[in-house]
Amino acid sequence: MKTTVTREIIRIENGEKQQVTDLIVSEYALTVKVNQQEIVTMVCTPEYVEDMVIGYLVSERILHYKDIEDIWHQEEEGFVHIKARKVNPFVQQLQNKRYLTSCCGMSRQGFVFASDALASKNLEDVKLSIAPEDCFRLMKEMQDSAQVFKQTGGVHNAALCDVKGIVISRMDIGRHNALDKIYGYCLRNNIPVKDKIIVFSGRISSEILMKVSKIGCAMVLSKSAPTELALNLAEQLGITTVGFIRNESMNIYTHPERIRLTKEGD
Amino acid sequence: MKTTVTREIIRIENGEKQQVTDLIVSEYALTVKVNQQEIVTMVCTPEYVEDMVIGYLVSERILHYKDIEDIWHQEEEGFVHIKARKVNPFVQQLQNKRYLTSCCGMSRQGFVFASDALASKNLEDVKLSIAPEDCFRLMKEMQDSAQVFKQTGGVHNAALCDVKGIVISRMDIGRHNALDKIYGYCLRNNIPVKDKIIVFSGRISSEILMKVSKIGCAMVLSKSAPTELALNLAEQLGITTVGFIRNESMNIYTHPERIRLTKEGD
Repeated sequence: MKTTVTREIIRIENGEKQQVTDLIVSEYALTVKVNQQEIVTMVCTPEYVEDMVIGYLVSERILHYKDIEDIWHQEEEGFVHIKARKVNPFVQQLQNKRYLTSCCGMSRQGFVFASDALASKNLEDVKLSIAPEDCFRLMKEMQDSAQVFKQTGGVHNAALCDVKGIVISRMDIGRHNALDKIYGYCLRNNIPVKDKIIVFSGRISSEILMKVSKIGCAMVLSKSAPTELALNLAEQLGITTVGFIRNESMNIYTHPERIRLTKEGD
Repeated sequence: MKTTVTREIIRIENGEKQQVTDLIVSEYALTVKVNQQEIVTMVCTPEYVEDMVIGYLVSERILHYKDIEDIWHQEEEGFVHIKARKVNPFVQQLQNKRYLTSCCGMSRQGFVFASDALASKNLEDVKLSIAPEDCFRLMKEMQDSAQVFKQTGGVHNAALCDVKGIVISRMDIGRHNALDKIYGYCLRNNIPVKDKIIVFSGRISSEILMKVSKIGCAMVLSKSAPTELALNLAEQLGITTVGFIRNESMNIYTHPERIRLTKEGD
């Protein structure tokens, strides 16, 4: 299985716009069954998956390595099956399987599934127009405002912006938390989010993308990389994703129609 | 509540060792109760927690904002209580509350609690001795080997090393996954881990620290920042944590006895 996929994106650099082929990291959802019981669904990079499952099950004390009798991977279907002589009795009492997300996880068992994502509101009709220069400026403003990050390096930062600048910014050791703090503030203060932009310090994983969609924002700007699944969701949900905003360059991955490449009509 | 705490650490820079006071980001565990039912425990930065809880509950469709009648924060005890007129009926069927971790989450419901951490093996007796120059070299080796990261920017890298160099390295969009892949490989190939060192690209959160301890490694090197809770656990579990390894400098946070500052006795 491939650990990266290629994708056509729009690269903005030195004021020039170019269509380029970019490498995006794959996301693979894998469900682990031990003696036919679903234990967990992990979102991962699709290589060494059997090692990962064994490492997970043993380090989390779900079973001992010596009790594994067989392991096989149904690649297409996204299953790893384990036949084990014995499992931790606690596991058999678990009612729900767990859903482990790739990064900045937060299992939202029962909430986060593809169906949930696809049931999210489609934001394709949201009108927003922003120039690359605005994206560079908003990213810089967010980074300049990130005091605790500068002091400790240990937090993620997120800001809700309009084209003019930051409306509200929050930081948290958990990146989802920063977005929840922003959304809660907006709800309590009656601040509309639909015409706003999320500017974010971290990677755009599928879960971050879904959080952006649940909040109801149609554009997310990041200084970091997106994953493949996040981009597929963004495509379907009508969200503009821009990544790798660094200095005066950036990548537009999905719904580029909201990025205008000349400043007229401001 | 404070979003950062100060801590005495050992800073190595330009070949000099210094005791300095460093700012470390706080981790706060917060349990959300809606109409007395435990919904979730979130690990977060302790500011704007009521906004965060509201943003979480509404964006995850657990309730509507208009149905919130009251909200109060028991700061010391780590609870936010919500009184709501109505909640999503699905929520009441949830058997287990969810445990949301701060970053690179992975809810390991039923597994990840403080008691679990404290039941982890204490590694204080593990003998390891490494010079700062070795730390710089191992970090550089790991980064040089990280092809997919260089291509996509979208993955975390981890390596199991001895003082001489990398034994095995893995990457994944989920940082825990990279560690599970390493551990599974070691189990299957009978490679002892106890005398080894984990070199890691990402932040050292409490969950990463616990995974390192569960695997049974007594030293973790990162190019990034640790959190307060991770350091408290590392202290108790006998794990040496070194962060911010960049160029020829680094911070030693816990169990510095394994870092030797002259090269004799190699």
